[in-house]
Amino acid sequence: MFDAKEFIDNSLKEIKNIVKENRVMSACSGGVDSTVTTFLVHKAVGEKMVAVFIDDGLRREGEPEFVVRTLKKMGAKTKYVDAKKDFFSALAGKTDAEEKRKAFRDTFYKTLGKAAKEEKITFMAQGTIKADVIETVQGIKSQHNVLEQIGINPETYGYKILEPLKELFKPDVRKVARELGLPKEISERMPFPGPALSLRVLGEVTPEKVAIVRKATVIVEEETRDLGTFQNFAVLHNDKATGIKNGKRVYGNIITVRIVESQDAVTAKFSRVPYDTLTRISERITKEIPSVVRCLYDMTDKPPSTIEFE
Amino acid sequence: MFDAKEFIDNSLKEIKNIVKENRVMSACSGGVDSTVTTFLVHKAVGEKMVAVFIDDGLRREGEPEFVVRTLKKMGAKTKYVDAKKDFFSALAGKTDAEEKRKAFRDTFYKTLGKAAKEEKITFMAQGTIKADVIETVQGIKSQHNVLEQIGINPETYGYKILEPLKELFKPDVRKVARELGLPKEISERMPFPGPALSLRVLGEVTPEKVAIVRKATVIVEEETRDLGTFQNFAVLHNDKATGIKNGKRVYGNIITVRIVESQDAVTAKFSRVPYDTLTRISERITKEIPSVVRCLYDMTDKPPSTIEFE
Repeated sequence: MFDAKEFIDNSLKEIKNIVKENRVMSACSGGVDSTVTTFLVHKAVGEKMVAVFIDDGLRREGEPEFVVRTLKKMGAKTKYVDAKKDFFSALAGKTDAEEKRKAFRDTFYKTLGKAAKEEKITFMAQGTIKADVIETVQGIKSQHNVLEQIGINPETYGYKILEPLKELFKPDVRKVARELGLPKEISERMPFPGPALSLRVLGEVTPEKVAIVRKATVIVEEETRDLGTFQNFAVLHNDKATGIKNGKRVYGNIITVRIVESQDAVTAKFSRVPYDTLTRISERITKEIPSVVRCLYDMTDKPPSTIEFE
Repeated sequence: MFDAKEFIDNSLKEIKNIVKENRVMSACSGGVDSTVTTFLVHKAVGEKMVAVFIDDGLRREGEPEFVVRTLKKMGAKTKYVDAKKDFFSALAGKTDAEEKRKAFRDTFYKTLGKAAKEEKITFMAQGTIKADVIETVQGIKSQHNVLEQIGINPETYGYKILEPLKELFKPDVRKVARELGLPKEISERMPFPGPALSLRVLGEVTPEKVAIVRKATVIVEEETRDLGTFQNFAVLHNDKATGIKNGKRVYGNIITVRIVESQDAVTAKFSRVPYDTLTRISERITKEIPSVVRCLYDMTDKPPSTIEFE
């Protein structure tokens, strides 16, 4: 049995031992992994840490404000970096899933490296967890926060990596969050991929397409809040389909809704959501987002599909 | 109340009156509309009619054989035209839904016109029904078998059009089929679009992509045979998504399953198919078609979507 209290005690000691009198930066996206990491490091080294939130323009509705608010509430020194333009120009013209992940990752590390230089840090804390490590090594996905495994030498960015959650699976991270007294909004937070909504826009990522999938995401999250499922989200297709709006034939957007049950994201089952809920989601999405004419539901387990589409 | 017997009696008289001693061709795709039309005309004018089946390479598994067999059983003079190459070259490079429909329609009429010339006919019978006429006029879709309404002058093809079902909605066509004693396989047959599987391959239509959606269609039809729904089919996306096959990350195909309830195709509801059935379909498709990693279910009514994707 995993003992969260023991893990925290050991982890705090270890972080202190490693960091010593140096300065640390903790990149926090607002997800449970990176927020727990930031909280742990802050608890261990206090003022020697600065939390950084990089706004890539790809976050969910209200997310940047929420993360910055949470970091400040925690008492952490907080740096907000507006890098929206950099990310959208790096993603422009890219349609292949791996190329998009790479463009995201490169821009992320360039931005983080710049912030690290400004803050003259020695260590960079990241919310890598065990599933990330396993899947990166297996080649299931190239996770942006597993540097060493994919052959990126963090020293070229001018800092050393601190990954206090590297040995934990998701349910244990949540236990640590609860033990640390983090609010439920964080400890029970759904997983959200590093490259954020860029993975949920098939084909080229543009601000307009991100805005569409962001709206659909709000609707899916509102309607599925009480399901207790592992991950609930929307994906915007590059394909278009015909529909009828105001009595006229139109050629419009397609949204897929993905709702899965899982313990650790390594395997997952698509959720048998009640049809009343699916119908409400489909009706709201096609009504509240005028360009969308069709709403699909993903009925594939992992494997053979992945949870995300890219 | 629609009286099928009365309709048939009047229709036979009318067809005889119009056709007189001339020769007629009836284009039969195997759908209930065109088969009932062919049967009616054959009953009315016998040897003066030749049934033609155009093999466009876009039919469902076993369909060409089934149609030719049905026509011969009916006692009709039957002409099989292999036009697969013509259709695939006309569709090559076309990705827009309307362009694809137009390429199909043009090739269809060119092929039919050639067959008509060879047979020296005066009349061409077609299975146009009322919903086709209404939707073409409203601009919901450009139906390939409503010539006059879309401004095509059939006389340029060298023949006059005979549309005995033009005033009927689908349920009445089925009543006529039953009254004529056609086998259940025909009278209860699901609607199938003129441009066939070309509408169910998003993006460019190639023989390889048609083969994939054809396989998925067999699985959907086998697993949903007893649902009593209006239309059940599969669509192959142009978008790709990530999946895991044999433990490795792959970038594969996406299939959407569409199952709707409807009376007349003018409006439709997506069917609340039991999840056991959807799961079986999803598992079979991703297992039996190696390139497919993801299976979606369409949860949109008509409106705001159409039944078909293009």
